[in-house]
Amino acid sequence: MVLAEMTWPEFREVSRDTVVLAPFAACEQHGPFLPFATDAVIASEVAARAEAVLGKEVLLLPTQWLGASQHHLPFGALTADVETHVRLVYETCDSMLQAGFRRLFVLNGHGGNIDTMHLALRQLDRRYPEVVLASASYWDVAATEIASILEGPLKRVGHACEVETSLMLWLRPDLVRRELIRDDHNFPAAALRGVAIARSAAEWGTVGAEGFATRATAEKGERLLQAIVARVVAVVRELRHTRPDGGRETDAPGEAAAGQE
Amino acid sequence: MVLAEMTWPEFREVSRDTVVLAPFAACEQHGPFLPFATDAVIASEVAARAEAVLGKEVLLLPTQWLGASQHHLPFGALTADVETHVRLVYETCDSMLQAGFRRLFVLNGHGGNIDTMHLALRQLDRRYPEVVLASASYWDVAATEIASILEGPLKRVGHACEVETSLMLWLRPDLVRRELIRDDHNFPAAALRGVAIARSAAEWGTVGAEGFATRATAEKGERLLQAIVARVVAVVRELRHTRPDGGRETDAPGEAAAGQE
Amino acid sequence: MVLAEMTWPEFREVSRDTVVLAPFAACEQHGPFLPFATDAVIASEVAARAEAVLGKEVLLLPTQWLGASQHHLPFGALTADVETHVRLVYETCDSMLQAGFRRLFVLNGHGGNIDTMHLALRQLDRRYPEVVLASASYWDVAATEIASILEGPLKRVGHACEVETSLMLWLRPDLVRRELIRDDHNFPAAALRGVAIARSAAEWGTVGAEGFATRATAEKGERLLQAIVARVVAVVRELRHTRPDGGRETDAPGEAAAGQE
Amino acid sequence: MVLAEMTWPEFREVSRDTVVLAPFAACEQHGPFLPFATDAVIASEVAARAEAVLGKEVLLLPTQWLGASQHHLPFGALTADVETHVRLVYETCDSMLQAGFRRLFVLNGHGGNIDTMHLALRQLDRRYPEVVLASASYWDVAATEIASILEGPLKRVGHACEVETSLMLWLRPDLVRRELIRDDHNFPAAALRGVAIARSAAEWGTVGAEGFATRATAEKGERLLQAIVARVVAVVRELRHTRPDGGRETDAPGEAAAGQE
Amino acid sequence: MVLAEMTWPEFREVSRDTVVLAPFAACEQHGPFLPFATDAVIASEVAARAEAVLGKEVLLLPTQWLGASQHHLPFGALTADVETHVRLVYETCDSMLQAGFRRLFVLNGHGGNIDTMHLALRQLDRRYPEVVLASASYWDVAATEIASILEGPLKRVGHACEVETSLMLWLRPDLVRRELIRDDHNFPAAALRGVAIARSAAEWGTVGAEGFATRATAEKGERLLQAIVARVVAVVRELRHTRPDGGRETDAPGEAAAGQE
Amino acid sequence: MVLAEMTWPEFREVSRDTVVLAPFAACEQHGPFLPFATDAVIASEVAARAEAVLGKEVLLLPTQWLGASQHHLPFGALTADVETHVRLVYETCDSMLQAGFRRLFVLNGHGGNIDTMHLALRQLDRRYPEVVLASASYWDVAATEIASILEGPLKRVGHACEVETSLMLWLRPDLVRRELIRDDHNFPAAALRGVAIARSAAEWGTVGAEGFATRATAEKGERLLQAIVARVVAVVRELRHTRPDGGRETDAPGEAAAGQE
Repeated sequence: MVLAEMTWPEFREVSRDTVVLAPFAACEQHGPFLPFATDAVIASEVAARAEAVLGKEVLLLPTQWLGASQHHLPFGALTADVETHVRLVYETCDSMLQAGFRRLFVLNGHGGNIDTMHLALRQLDRRYPEVVLASASYWDVAATEIASILEGPLKRVGHACEVETSLMLWLRPDLVRRELIRDDHNFPAAALRGVAIARSAAEWGTVGAEGFATRATAEKGERLLQAIVARVVAVVRELRHTRPDGGRETDAPGEAAAGQE
Repeated sequence: MVLAEMTWPEFREVSRDTVVLAPFAACEQHGPFLPFATDAVIASEVAARAEAVLGKEVLLLPTQWLGASQHHLPFGALTADVETHVRLVYETCDSMLQAGFRRLFVLNGHGGNIDTMHLALRQLDRRYPEVVLASASYWDVAATEIASILEGPLKRVGHACEVETSLMLWLRPDLVRRELIRDDHNFPAAALRGVAIARSAAEWGTVGAEGFATRATAEKGERLLQAIVARVVAVVRELRHTRPDGGRETDAPGEAAAGQE
Repeated sequence: MVLAEMTWPEFREVSRDTVVLAPFAACEQHGPFLPFATDAVIASEVAARAEAVLGKEVLLLPTQWLGASQHHLPFGALTADVETHVRLVYETCDSMLQAGFRRLFVLNGHGGNIDTMHLALRQLDRRYPEVVLASASYWDVAATEIASILEGPLKRVGHACEVETSLMLWLRPDLVRRELIRDDHNFPAAALRGVAIARSAAEWGTVGAEGFATRATAEKGERLLQAIVARVVAVVRELRHTRPDGGRETDAPGEAAAGQE
Repeated sequence: MVLAEMTWPEFREVSRDTVVLAPFAACEQHGPFLPFATDAVIASEVAARAEAVLGKEVLLLPTQWLGASQHHLPFGALTADVETHVRLVYETCDSMLQAGFRRLFVLNGHGGNIDTMHLALRQLDRRYPEVVLASASYWDVAATEIASILEGPLKRVGHACEVETSLMLWLRPDLVRRELIRDDHNFPAAALRGVAIARSAAEWGTVGAEGFATRATAEKGERLLQAIVARVVAVVRELRHTRPDGGRETDAPGEAAAGQE
Repeated sequence: MVLAEMTWPEFREVSRDTVVLAPFAACEQHGPFLPFATDAVIASEVAARAEAVLGKEVLLLPTQWLGASQHHLPFGALTADVETHVRLVYETCDSMLQAGFRRLFVLNGHGGNIDTMHLALRQLDRRYPEVVLASASYWDVAATEIASILEGPLKRVGHACEVETSLMLWLRPDLVRRELIRDDHNFPAAALRGVAIARSAAEWGTVGAEGFATRATAEKGERLLQAIVARVVAVVRELRHTRPDGGRETDAPGEAAAGQE
Repeated sequence: MVLAEMTWPEFREVSRDTVVLAPFAACEQHGPFLPFATDAVIASEVAARAEAVLGKEVLLLPTQWLGASQHHLPFGALTADVETHVRLVYETCDSMLQAGFRRLFVLNGHGGNIDTMHLALRQLDRRYPEVVLASASYWDVAATEIASILEGPLKRVGHACEVETSLMLWLRPDLVRRELIRDDHNFPAAALRGVAIARSAAEWGTVGAEGFATRATAEKGERLLQAIVARVVAVVRELRHTRPDGGRETDAPGEAAAGQE
């Protein structure tokens, strides 16, 4: 079910046990070969395809394309300040929680949104302790699948990398400047493992990217998309049986708990 | 030019004298016959068609669909708080002003955004006194044209009214529930002319609409759209010759100043 | 009834159905011929004369003279930031709503306060959905009357214009520098009709005014004042019969609804 | 000099070494015998009489009557939240500091404003380290003089006390309900000396007052007013020779430093 | 009882009538002879010794060492902005009030925290009108005792003064640079009695201190500490019998009310 | 070097290339067997021991014990709101950056602080683009080492787990209630891998813990502490040669870049 296409009497009829799926992305530079819309295209496609599978199991919100992208301003971006982005996630979700929904899944497609998304859900948790408040970046729910598909030395999403470029070659080849695709990487010192360095995208190598885009293919994009969509579908279905504390409802069918984290 | 489709080297090449066109809309109930997406569909179409005419004269941003819609929550809406919406407009525009653009036009498609858009631009004016900061709702730039096309007793935009319903019948007839179209209106007492009453949409008549939607036709929608797009094109072109104080650049071609307001 | 002159036992006895009248103004430059106090003098006089007519039908608050006047700083002003001005209106009104009053009329006398006054009342509406929250600038409730009295080409209030200068010539001639009165106007391009341009007062012509002050007379000031006070009285009386949704109470006497807006 | 009565060309001519005098008061209950306006009447009169003596040595701002009075809400008050009141003081003063003034004196007439006034000036000090930022409540600059005039057991200002009632009997006897004057006091335990207890006015004795109003006379009011005005005049004159660090300018005439604090 | 050393089952057993003791200090320069930790050392020792006497009569929180010290930045400090410091006090206390405690005593050891502590408790009072919310700086509860011990011309706490230096010589002589101890004072003009001047520590004399540290001795430090701890103990015991309005519970044993303030 | 023990002339002499080490912790329940102070004890000891090794290579700030712990309130905690915690980290660090330091390492000891620490450093990066802004939780810099020491099924830090209990048995055995030590775990469903669920500690198993505390020993605590301190020392030393973009200064000695992430 797609909220944007509904009228209010239809919205009023939706079961409040339906999982609300809220995609968040960004509008920012993705190197000289991918468009500003990259994150929004990918997050929207993943969410729309999951909705196509899930039907009445999910209520899909429109994709918020304004992300927390201040670190991309030197190359070019539209960005919310981080405090504002927390409010953006909070208030979008709150609109649905005030309407009575009890299961929410924020699906993220931009690395800069991770901290703000977490804070927003922690604040919502204080107000709505009885609601299932879940969030994930698409690359985290499908980390294993993505790693197994990639061929370059970076086995995860970077920025304008093998994953994003493959997905765009599959989804919107018209927006990819193939002749300008190139690799860009800047590995930190080994001694800094586990350390985060706050820095601007202008400081990442020379073209505002991070990863091995030259390994990207449209065919990999198709496989990545299928794997990611499958995982998002699985998460939404599991959330239908999840308690606010993260455990499973006792009468839920099927799947056993994970052995190890 | 469409920002979302550009790469950063292309963005860097855009003349900073280009007018930035930033559309803002909402995602909220529009009666039992129009979808939540109504404002976003209309604002996006108006902006995209203006961009198609203007080409390199304009830089189009993506449409922000999250509006200041708290007064629609009783029927259904996604909404930002008013303070957050001010920030949303401010920071979206600020991203472009930091990048050096000097002419900005916020194009609004939702009544609840008027106050917040004004405050955001007043705050931007304090920081960027040398920039042309313009804003308008699409129905205000084309008020005369709209009034001349309408047939119902309300000669302006209401909500899910003759204007919006006509536009949607033309643009997205698949999303209109024709059989449920109905009029809804609630005129205030004559003694209250000039007075604003803060109130919830739940208090507007009985179906969350305001206006005479039964007068709507797709053909009117087409005429309305053409008139509105023509006016937006004219505004953007005039802004290319406007000074930060609202006057015309002395060497600008053509048009004389208005005789009376 | 005048709050500032009451003791708390008297305040406690006031019927909570009384309309609270809250005037807001500014302290800012009004050209080389009118004093900074212009807006406060006018708003206070209008409100006090309405109170003199209305007696126990109204509870008058003191006039807040600190407005949202940042755009006048280049010439000279005391100003609140726009966010602070929203709080100023909100909290002043909230003090009365917490005390149980159910009908509120914010009477504005400064153009820069319009957006902030609207936002404050929208926020109050979220907290007090059952209260009648009305607001207006004095020139909007009496727009027709004012236009019929004016002789200059601008048929509405500008700034240090025919209206304000006439009112001050009638109310406080000692504060008007007659020998310095002059016209000042700067009409925008016709193509920009319906567009708002955020700009500083320093950019309005050459003397920080907007309008045709040379047409002002004390006699016009008297007529304007009478017309405005009569309209404010009429609004307060109508608000005594208004529901929170803006409609009339069903058992209210008299006046029929307006035919057209 | 009175800002409210000036035009902008006159304001522009004022020497930026003039001391800006900014009075802050409140609008809140003062027991069953004094009006809500008490603090504003007293602060305004003190400031106006000081200005009458000082002439071009001072630039007087209008009195802000909205104070930080939340603790009086149970009896009745208009109040700003404390954060908002900090902004109110900050922004009023900032408007003058942006205009280039370098010596500022906030004159306070309401106990609830002391903390907020201090915070506002501390924040201003961070932005304007080279400006003289002084503040005082009128009863603190004249503490010795006030104590010597009072006859009741409380030798300082309370609330609706001997000081305030005497001043109102002298300044606005028409607003005093003489037949209702009574004492009200509630001394804390001796063990709590030096301790502040946050509490509502509703908890102070039985009538919302604190002090010995039955000792008040108009004649005392006249003497109190003269003493307070003299001290305010002396402070303003000294501030003309004060450095931002609180010391005296080395070439200042006259007065030696205090021996002990 | 010391919160930091407890487990949650022990915390759950604590009587909610116990007085919560919350010490606040700072980390800022104290002249060339005392360490940044001075305020935290003193406040922590006073609180810990009071807790040692009071046992189950008090629940001691850890000392917050981050104060409102912006005025010491030119010499050196860690500081919270004043707004943040208000939140720090508010939220620390609120954590205990949400857990059900009804008597709270904020014990302050840094002059820059007085305003922020007051505002925090005023805000808490609005939310928790039924709670006893007390605060004091240690030098105010023992003002008489301190004055009687001091020998220098300043009979109260300054900064890196006779009081603080004596206390540090007794408590942490290893952290005192004895050879660098010196007096520093800068008395304001007599005409400014009762006036506060916002200023940076960099403007206080020449070494960032205020007072007569050369009079300090370890022996005085011991006597000061004993006097202060005794007063804090007395305050906590009295608060066990104090009502939210600051009066005594009617069935409280012993002490009569103070005759005069 | 320990800031708290310095005087301002000593502080002024510190090289601004020294790495500032800022520990952040929490004061919250740690099950029935560990004290509220657990995170603060561990973070302080790690930092102090690293400082003992590093000497003049580091400037150690005091440990901030107030964390973002709202999710522990049902069992017991002192907590800052998440927005306030962002400010706490920001302003503490900012105090040092304003003093001219150019290399900063925030060392975290509480899971609830990760999001807020990240946001604070991202905001600082916007203001100080030329500064090295690093942050890590102690368990992330030593993840490999910790995993190799642990014997229970959870190979990382949980809460009151094998790691924290071992460390406290080594550092403060007097504060551990050994007889109450027990395991507590609640693994999420396998389908939710990569998904974060916002939830209260009250929802984690039955005793407010997460992990296998029964496997803890003091001997393991000693080995864990040594491994963690060694890694913190290595990080600080590497940061002395790190550029603001996270790369190594070109003339830095020794270590090659990491092969893979």
